[in-house]
Amino acid sequence: MTILESLTISDWLRTELKQGRFPPRMPAHRRVYESIRRAIANEHLTPGTRLPSTRSLAQDLDLSRNTLLAAFEQLHEEGYVVSQVGSGTRVADTLPESFLVLDEAQAQGGQEAAKRPAILSRRGTMAAGPVDQPSHEVQPFTPGEDDFSAFPTRLWRRLLNRQWRDPQPAYLDYGHAGGHLPLRRAIANYLRMSRTVNLTVEQVLITSGTQQSIDLCARMLTDVGDRVWVESPCYWGARRVLEVNGLDLHPVPVDDEGMAPGNRDFRRPPRLIYTTPSHQYPKGVVMSYGRRRLLLDYAASRGAWILEDDYDSEFRFEGRPLSSLQGMDQNGCVLYMGTFSKVMYPGIKLGYIVVPPDLADSFKRGLYELQRPGQVVIQAALAEFIEEGHFSTHIRRLRQIYKERRQLLQKVLAPVATVGARLPPAGSGLHLVVELPAHCDDVRVAELAAEQGLRVYPLSLYGVGEKREKGLIVGYAYAATERITPYGRILADVIQAALSS
Amino acid sequence: MTILESLTISDWLRTELKQGRFPPRMPAHRRVYESIRRAIANEHLTPGTRLPSTRSLAQDLDLSRNTLLAAFEQLHEEGYVVSQVGSGTRVADTLPESFLVLDEAQAQGGQEAAKRPAILSRRGTMAAGPVDQPSHEVQPFTPGEDDFSAFPTRLWRRLLNRQWRDPQPAYLDYGHAGGHLPLRRAIANYLRMSRTVNLTVEQVLITSGTQQSIDLCARMLTDVGDRVWVESPCYWGARRVLEVNGLDLHPVPVDDEGMAPGNRDFRRPPRLIYTTPSHQYPKGVVMSYGRRRLLLDYAASRGAWILEDDYDSEFRFEGRPLSSLQGMDQNGCVLYMGTFSKVMYPGIKLGYIVVPPDLADSFKRGLYELQRPGQVVIQAALAEFIEEGHFSTHIRRLRQIYKERRQLLQKVLAPVATVGARLPPAGSGLHLVVELPAHCDDVRVAELAAEQGLRVYPLSLYGVGEKREKGLIVGYAYAATERITPYGRILADVIQAALSS
Repeated sequence: MTILESLTISDWLRTELKQGRFPPRMPAHRRVYESIRRAIANEHLTPGTRLPSTRSLAQDLDLSRNTLLAAFEQLHEEGYVVSQVGSGTRVADTLPESFLVLDEAQAQGGQEAAKRPAILSRRGTMAAGPVDQPSHEVQPFTPGEDDFSAFPTRLWRRLLNRQWRDPQPAYLDYGHAGGHLPLRRAIANYLRMSRTVNLTVEQVLITSGTQQSIDLCARMLTDVGDRVWVESPCYWGARRVLEVNGLDLHPVPVDDEGMAPGNRDFRRPPRLIYTTPSHQYPKGVVMSYGRRRLLLDYAASRGAWILEDDYDSEFRFEGRPLSSLQGMDQNGCVLYMGTFSKVMYPGIKLGYIVVPPDLADSFKRGLYELQRPGQVVIQAALAEFIEEGHFSTHIRRLRQIYKERRQLLQKVLAPVATVGARLPPAGSGLHLVVELPAHCDDVRVAELAAEQGLRVYPLSLYGVGEKREKGLIVGYAYAATERITPYGRILADVIQAALSS
Repeated sequence: MTILESLTISDWLRTELKQGRFPPRMPAHRRVYESIRRAIANEHLTPGTRLPSTRSLAQDLDLSRNTLLAAFEQLHEEGYVVSQVGSGTRVADTLPESFLVLDEAQAQGGQEAAKRPAILSRRGTMAAGPVDQPSHEVQPFTPGEDDFSAFPTRLWRRLLNRQWRDPQPAYLDYGHAGGHLPLRRAIANYLRMSRTVNLTVEQVLITSGTQQSIDLCARMLTDVGDRVWVESPCYWGARRVLEVNGLDLHPVPVDDEGMAPGNRDFRRPPRLIYTTPSHQYPKGVVMSYGRRRLLLDYAASRGAWILEDDYDSEFRFEGRPLSSLQGMDQNGCVLYMGTFSKVMYPGIKLGYIVVPPDLADSFKRGLYELQRPGQVVIQAALAEFIEEGHFSTHIRRLRQIYKERRQLLQKVLAPVATVGARLPPAGSGLHLVVELPAHCDDVRVAELAAEQGLRVYPLSLYGVGEKREKGLIVGYAYAATERITPYGRILADVIQAALSS
């Protein structure tokens, strides 16, 4: 009770009904219902408040008892009040959040609200963002964008054509068995050779990309409320999907050896650990051997699953390719995932998960039930693209292009070190991180860059939880090579100006 | 340091390199790298151990300094060692305090922890089925299977080719704006004309099919524990997705006017109503006008959303096409969805949702965040397929084919009426229902049919909740026209034998 401390509910309700803020022909039971509903929604009637009996209210308000019964019945049906034998009717403890949202929306929208407001669910609200998320507008330096102008479309068309010339009926159907077998075989060979992934073809599932892979793993392996470790900073696409799946996201900091769990984190073991060991996203750190062992041993001992997202290991410019976490795992607790969106083109919508042998069948069924995969013709063309060697050739070519862009960008951005920014060495990937001092407003710096037509992302927006590092994520895959230096100079100027002021 | 307590690292490394447990042609830098890496992995070199400088090692081992530098660089890249100005190179730190926690866990877990059982989450177990669900093996009469041998692959190849000839970069990217605009426009025109759907292009979203459409709606509009009405019997693909989303499925019976909610159902209003008004799946009933009004008014008054799944309205053989529920809605509470998997081919993985105007932006963002849609080239080809009239032509052609198969099947199954089965008249769709008496074990009858090589589905498996009708769902879209009569005769015999015994 708040408004009702000095008034009885009967007195308040009598005033409320008299003031007549109701449409003229609204029946009495509806007015009673509306008055109480609003009071609950506005928290003027607080959870647990006991309402008078319908009998006494009918007397006090001079209304028929049926009117009161009808109003209470509706409040009850809609979950605003609960009633228990012996304790009368009380305002419900857990008010659906949507009711509150609704009232707010109605208050704001005024008459508009009569035409149903757009009410999303809580998870829908999360999914629709735009919390902590840049726009999708692509400009030079937008991270996560590839240069698919380099994609050999003519060759690809030829391969697709070959498939369409005489497609087997199965090619037009849904994909029933975890994906097109030749593609699964090609991926298995590739991962075994290049990524030391330890697998048989049976363990490979073709998905329609990173989001779907993470979503499938989250659903197959976790329930609502389960704890999941994410790196902070972290890929927000992953974070969004995990959040929408109702998981309790626990941020684990990242240091120079990668994801760095400490005692605070070990206290409550997670059900799932989402990590990017080959090239931490977005910071670019490679997870150390010791940290890998630690994660694997910890996960095995606590029955946690590790989801290793190896999203861009193809783009390694220096040193040898690293082995995967999956390849070191002795206990079958790592799921390994990758994508073709960066090497081929984003819209191809093909990725893969390698699951422990025991999970393969369940995952295949889950994949079919939840996503009804298809696009077998494209899978068949991709299998040929890989087996005929075009995939390796294309990767080598992209690696050359991106390496040059990275070097140019590193060079042109180097002067920012003089004003307190830091450019950590990075031997792989499609973006650089410019680390900024803790006091710096990186969102503002990114805005200033955007005013110059350069879209970079503030590192703080990738943070999960309280502690957020400052910096800029600068993608170099999208801008043409000859534009890197002039654009980079503008960006360097923006950073220098921001840090000097 | 453990093995090195009595040896210097130089001495140990010299012995290690001499013992020569390396492939014969392995270069020197790789041998150094491997030796040190193994020692760290075996914990012979413990965290924090300081390594000699490359200069002094080069001297001690009589190797070039570049060899040592290359080895150290890779160890560093892979995170086995860390180096800091002034303190040289050390074996990476592995958080000793974390190992303590770990040891405790291992002590508890004992040997058991070594081999992990395959543990799915509760929702994962639901997703992996196989509760109440037939296999995916396709045989004549398998419901839900189309005859995509009729699909004009040559024409389709030509359209795809045209798109691939000179694809715009955006065609290779993810789909950011709810789908390819020309396709959304083509769909809007088609739905406005053929299905009396009331819409603007802005309300159309392209999804990757029915499962994804239902999943998106469930996530955007409902939270875990929310009540959703489903028809009983119901399409189990929809049911599975709703269940995995944590919803409280409330079965509403279906009568001759379609979904038939009663007082028992009204008691607790749902958040979402999933319905197939044009052609109830699987029973084939068309929802009456009165029932449509009832559902619309009820949903509007209770703030519930209606998801209208218009999955096969293209295949209507008699009478006028029905208007959609969406077209009757005055309150913006209906979401309308359809699919291209039945008219084109299942693996195309394209469907659409029409959402109320207020929801369009949120849904677009949610679609992007949760599914990262793509396949724009195929969307562009499909837009042309529709706009150039091939879509209508193809539907007309399929309609002729399926109408003939349906008539043949109805005729050959007619004798089952003599043993108590019932063949309700059906003017549309791709399957027939053979209703069986309540005492009949329809699962057993379906098994008997399967023994004859005919896959039909028992109606009771589509039921939700306790009350389940008996019958057989017989698809006629997949079997070739000339096989319908001979196969149908076998099926009729099976049914007659089962009911007579």
